[in-house]
Amino acid sequence: MAGDHGLKYAMVGGGIDAFIGEVHRKAIALDNSATLVAGALSSTPERSMESAKQLGLPEDRSYGTWQELVEKESERDDGVDFVVIVTPNNTHHPIAKACLEAGLNVVLDKPMTMTSDEARELAHLANDNDLVCGVTYTYTGYPMIREAAELVRNGTLGNIRRVELRYLQGWLANDIESEGQKQASWRMDPKQAGAGGTLGDIGTHAEHLASFVTGLEIESLSAELTSFVDGRVLDDDTSVRVRYEGGAKGTYLATQVLIGEENTITLSVYGDKGSLWWSNGDANDLKVATLERDTYYLTRGQDSLSERAKAATRTPPGHPEGYLEAFANIYRGVAELINAKKLGTPVGPLGHDVPGPEAGLCGMRFVERVVSSSNQDGAWV
Amino acid sequence: MAGDHGLKYAMVGGGIDAFIGEVHRKAIALDNSATLVAGALSSTPERSMESAKQLGLPEDRSYGTWQELVEKESERDDGVDFVVIVTPNNTHHPIAKACLEAGLNVVLDKPMTMTSDEARELAHLANDNDLVCGVTYTYTGYPMIREAAELVRNGTLGNIRRVELRYLQGWLANDIESEGQKQASWRMDPKQAGAGGTLGDIGTHAEHLASFVTGLEIESLSAELTSFVDGRVLDDDTSVRVRYEGGAKGTYLATQVLIGEENTITLSVYGDKGSLWWSNGDANDLKVATLERDTYYLTRGQDSLSERAKAATRTPPGHPEGYLEAFANIYRGVAELINAKKLGTPVGPLGHDVPGPEAGLCGMRFVERVVSSSNQDGAWV
Amino acid sequence: MAGDHGLKYAMVGGGIDAFIGEVHRKAIALDNSATLVAGALSSTPERSMESAKQLGLPEDRSYGTWQELVEKESERDDGVDFVVIVTPNNTHHPIAKACLEAGLNVVLDKPMTMTSDEARELAHLANDNDLVCGVTYTYTGYPMIREAAELVRNGTLGNIRRVELRYLQGWLANDIESEGQKQASWRMDPKQAGAGGTLGDIGTHAEHLASFVTGLEIESLSAELTSFVDGRVLDDDTSVRVRYEGGAKGTYLATQVLIGEENTITLSVYGDKGSLWWSNGDANDLKVATLERDTYYLTRGQDSLSERAKAATRTPPGHPEGYLEAFANIYRGVAELINAKKLGTPVGPLGHDVPGPEAGLCGMRFVERVVSSSNQDGAWV
Amino acid sequence: MAGDHGLKYAMVGGGIDAFIGEVHRKAIALDNSATLVAGALSSTPERSMESAKQLGLPEDRSYGTWQELVEKESERDDGVDFVVIVTPNNTHHPIAKACLEAGLNVVLDKPMTMTSDEARELAHLANDNDLVCGVTYTYTGYPMIREAAELVRNGTLGNIRRVELRYLQGWLANDIESEGQKQASWRMDPKQAGAGGTLGDIGTHAEHLASFVTGLEIESLSAELTSFVDGRVLDDDTSVRVRYEGGAKGTYLATQVLIGEENTITLSVYGDKGSLWWSNGDANDLKVATLERDTYYLTRGQDSLSERAKAATRTPPGHPEGYLEAFANIYRGVAELINAKKLGTPVGPLGHDVPGPEAGLCGMRFVERVVSSSNQDGAWV
Repeated sequence: MAGDHGLKYAMVGGGIDAFIGEVHRKAIALDNSATLVAGALSSTPERSMESAKQLGLPEDRSYGTWQELVEKESERDDGVDFVVIVTPNNTHHPIAKACLEAGLNVVLDKPMTMTSDEARELAHLANDNDLVCGVTYTYTGYPMIREAAELVRNGTLGNIRRVELRYLQGWLANDIESEGQKQASWRMDPKQAGAGGTLGDIGTHAEHLASFVTGLEIESLSAELTSFVDGRVLDDDTSVRVRYEGGAKGTYLATQVLIGEENTITLSVYGDKGSLWWSNGDANDLKVATLERDTYYLTRGQDSLSERAKAATRTPPGHPEGYLEAFANIYRGVAELINAKKLGTPVGPLGHDVPGPEAGLCGMRFVERVVSSSNQDGAWV
Repeated sequence: MAGDHGLKYAMVGGGIDAFIGEVHRKAIALDNSATLVAGALSSTPERSMESAKQLGLPEDRSYGTWQELVEKESERDDGVDFVVIVTPNNTHHPIAKACLEAGLNVVLDKPMTMTSDEARELAHLANDNDLVCGVTYTYTGYPMIREAAELVRNGTLGNIRRVELRYLQGWLANDIESEGQKQASWRMDPKQAGAGGTLGDIGTHAEHLASFVTGLEIESLSAELTSFVDGRVLDDDTSVRVRYEGGAKGTYLATQVLIGEENTITLSVYGDKGSLWWSNGDANDLKVATLERDTYYLTRGQDSLSERAKAATRTPPGHPEGYLEAFANIYRGVAELINAKKLGTPVGPLGHDVPGPEAGLCGMRFVERVVSSSNQDGAWV
Repeated sequence: MAGDHGLKYAMVGGGIDAFIGEVHRKAIALDNSATLVAGALSSTPERSMESAKQLGLPEDRSYGTWQELVEKESERDDGVDFVVIVTPNNTHHPIAKACLEAGLNVVLDKPMTMTSDEARELAHLANDNDLVCGVTYTYTGYPMIREAAELVRNGTLGNIRRVELRYLQGWLANDIESEGQKQASWRMDPKQAGAGGTLGDIGTHAEHLASFVTGLEIESLSAELTSFVDGRVLDDDTSVRVRYEGGAKGTYLATQVLIGEENTITLSVYGDKGSLWWSNGDANDLKVATLERDTYYLTRGQDSLSERAKAATRTPPGHPEGYLEAFANIYRGVAELINAKKLGTPVGPLGHDVPGPEAGLCGMRFVERVVSSSNQDGAWV
Repeated sequence: MAGDHGLKYAMVGGGIDAFIGEVHRKAIALDNSATLVAGALSSTPERSMESAKQLGLPEDRSYGTWQELVEKESERDDGVDFVVIVTPNNTHHPIAKACLEAGLNVVLDKPMTMTSDEARELAHLANDNDLVCGVTYTYTGYPMIREAAELVRNGTLGNIRRVELRYLQGWLANDIESEGQKQASWRMDPKQAGAGGTLGDIGTHAEHLASFVTGLEIESLSAELTSFVDGRVLDDDTSVRVRYEGGAKGTYLATQVLIGEENTITLSVYGDKGSLWWSNGDANDLKVATLERDTYYLTRGQDSLSERAKAATRTPPGHPEGYLEAFANIYRGVAELINAKKLGTPVGPLGHDVPGPEAGLCGMRFVERVVSSSNQDGAWV
């Protein structure tokens, strides 16, 4: 189909009952960015083979373990172009490392690894071997987030003063991990999730989203992690005050215990010439105000938007695009990057906007700094 | 992948530069409902073959004309399971007729045909031959529209009093068809579009959406068609007052000349026990009020929704789904229907919610009644 | 206080238990537009005197009947400057006539009278005697409605194509008049309310609001009146299709039986250069779109607004004004008009925007045409 | 009029060109809570007398200085019932002290004083002399804020976890005080405003609003004050992290340099059973969610609201009330309190909700703690 460059991919994790694996597969399928041809889909060989069967994978590419997958696919002449890793955080690093060492491009879910050292190692491996290592920070896939980044870049807002980011959920308002809810269990288990609970899960989204739109570097931060639900070891609520290089300030709030918040993300960026507001509940709109003009709205699909935003859209204005489309934009970019390496086709705006290993590393450093500051009662780190 | 039943489809129309063909392909790909394996993609053999090549179709299934496609695919043992027809309105009938006569299931864009007689013929053919004939009234694919239909069906609203539906666009505010804008040109050409301009294009969406949600039959209607833009032969604005069987009343406004309206669809249904409101700008929400309760919101993905709505969703609450997902739900239903015939798998809620030939016929009768009433200065028809 | 020109007024009706009388008094008090010094506040002398006492009126100006009030106040040297008439519709005409014949300025609630003949008589009386006869069409008192009228007047929208006005309430969804609810009882009694139920009560607001903003004259209309609630004689739902002089079209929907609608008023005006949207739920904002610009928002209190809108505001942007402030703007205008006659002070924008007897008459003709059309099954009248 | 108990008041400050004095006068007039009969309206005797004349005050109660006003009014048999003090912050304390020592009730604008010591002294004076000392924290006058407080009080939200409050303005985005803008000049002058700029002006509103709704006491806070505009001595941006007694946490952001924010106040309160959301842009609505129910809306004027909220409203649902009505509710409460002392009439919910000297003192302590924390780079204070 249009945009089909015949890329093939494998998936590690994402088998039966997994939520996010299916999201990745749909996001890739939407634009026919690549075709799933191999997998090691679960944590036991039996369940892996069963999942592979359900997904219709060929038997010889249905692997019981990720080690086997990496070994076989990197040896095949028609081996996959990239591997999508959608396992719990603690396995990201060994799997990705093995892939990159075997010459396989990878796409990882966030947070990238368990530590910044691990992330740094992967970044070096990818760079040294000239391989793609994408990290699926989904929300930067929204066209109007890309337009927002353009408005900052082109000076419409002037010098940034304040960045306000809230990422609010409520599904962990109760101790559902004790009741065996699978999504909750691994996210709140330090062995599988790492040093951050909510911090790692959605705090990293917040950090990357702010960074993507503003381009600002965090100079120092003061943080407070809270576990509101009794018995929870990891944080379920992360509050961060940020000082950026150049004098701007920001606050990030990421929390998963607020009843009634389904998946609320709001971003406001205020400069000395203008401001912008975005929320994922109205993901197709971008509100803007400048000193010269009244408050106005930019909407996805308009001709007047930047090429960068237009490249990331499929339907006309007024025909809403959502989360899967944003996710799919990351994968269209990944396909652009891989095709560029493979076929010499040009990298367009979608490829340039793929979050790479540096973004993943940045997220891990953010997690570590937040934990450190919180442990020092909010000292600036 | 999950839900892959190995269906194959062909497309007629939808080649290079076509807008809606690509939308259909993405909608089918999102859930892997079927795979495109054949096509007669354009109005000339040359452009058809070129489009087929770009989409990566096998040469032996890249057809120059739809007649050839129907002939060959109906003869092949591995012929397609269904044909998607995305050509201008005036060719829907001959193509669909040929398909149905050759035993091929079809999916048609709306409006179904040029006349109700044509639509009736297709409906008979489909029914007599036990074939699927789906019509892509996209907006009924939204999960919260299906929830709305459930709320009416289960009596939450009581007896319906008023139905208010507005479908507002602005892209035809100027005479862009004279400037050669392709989408505008055929829609405002009576030879290609039929008796209704805006009426056929989006007025039929309005009629079906109201019918789908409320289940009400139109007893009589009073209509006024207007061409606001000079030189336009067909209507660009349709205002209809409806009397339903049972005493409810409604007004539909469909217009394409309202500057600032991108693709605004709002539906309000008011009964003697409660009311509901939906708009495609907030497609993931459904506002409800009843005499017993405060005004409240249902949101896509909630556990408390009906099975019918839940079957039509992919992502958790707060992760917005949009137009392509709604569209894809129609095709998931089509796949259910065809698999039921082919493999004996059960038809689920998605299949039962596919708009069939009766819905298409209903739309054509609506077009004809509206034109008739308007020609009589709004007499009740 | 600021703006105090020492005007004195009397009130007819508006005693104990009355809703709207207190609203008028507050609206007048807010800006100290005038001081209440006399009243005939109820339908029996006993209750009138009791109400007067509660309001602290001087005994010698607490009247048992309106006839007495008119006689005495018109004879006093320090008689009132104007009389506010807030009685059921059927008494508007005799009271206002007596006032105007006695040389007293009046302010009437809408609908102005029971018939257009009565309204015409009052208009003539007011004009012949050079007296103020204001009609409290409250919603035109909103600053952003006045800004909307300016945008039409100054050509920002170009030639108007469509006017969409909905005035929706739900408090009459059940037969509460049979249960003795006072507000409902007289409004649904033809003897007290006139030929229109909902039509007279809020349909006239709709007509005036559209007329005030657009300046368009109704050429003909096609209407349908419905009584959804069993046993109700007058309409509780009014649907009108309008053709304006010059070719624009409109639809008005006024209804009081829609559960969940508290007092929803939405106005959209679409021209061939631009559009505007207003709703009383966001009364401080005005949404505008033009061909040249993105969709933008004007907000009450901004420096960039017209003098006409700015004159009608009291607080800075972001400090919302509401219904009482809109109401108070009518009275500030009435005070301007009366002071102009009395003291020779200039009439400013507030005075020019007071709905006069012609507006009241226009409303009564609207009621009569709607009833006539509805009786002829929607014929154009 | 209804509710008129014949109270008389004097005003100190609020003369020509003053903004807030007129707001207080309108708020008092709206419900006829009291009548202005005396004033020392400006900082020079000449301008005071001129302002008094414009407001129509009797000559013998038009004072050149506040000292004179206090002396004379406290000696008159028919002296005022209370004095409204609407001068710059630095004069609040001496004026209020003189009033209270002379036995006069007072109403003060916030922030109450320059220091907490001053506020404490006034609180003692008021309590010792059994006098009313109201502080006009306007936003707690909104009926739906009072309903919110009831929902917390009656346990609907369970134990509070998070309080999020933002008070955002943009009018100080540039250095307009250097250009002589009067409102800006004194607010950004430490001699007139005190230790806090934005902190004192709107940060105190934020603190009181959160306290009023939740009833939570601040255990400790960590703050960061910023002056984004060059040359500004006082803060124009206040960011505070709060730990409440009992374990809840909160963040307040109060800033006046955010372009495009007119006067945005949003409050979210999250408990372990439910949540509520309010914003002054939709001041008539309160959004609520609980574990047991879908997200729903309470609206001003509904019968189902608490008596406390209903007592603070004037018009039916759907007829919006705004800032002046909220302000007026404070004064209706002040009138209740004074009448209770004077006439023995009962204190109703409006009186009980008047912010008293303790609230004012609390605000001053908040200012001092924030400044202290900020000076220690965000240490918990």
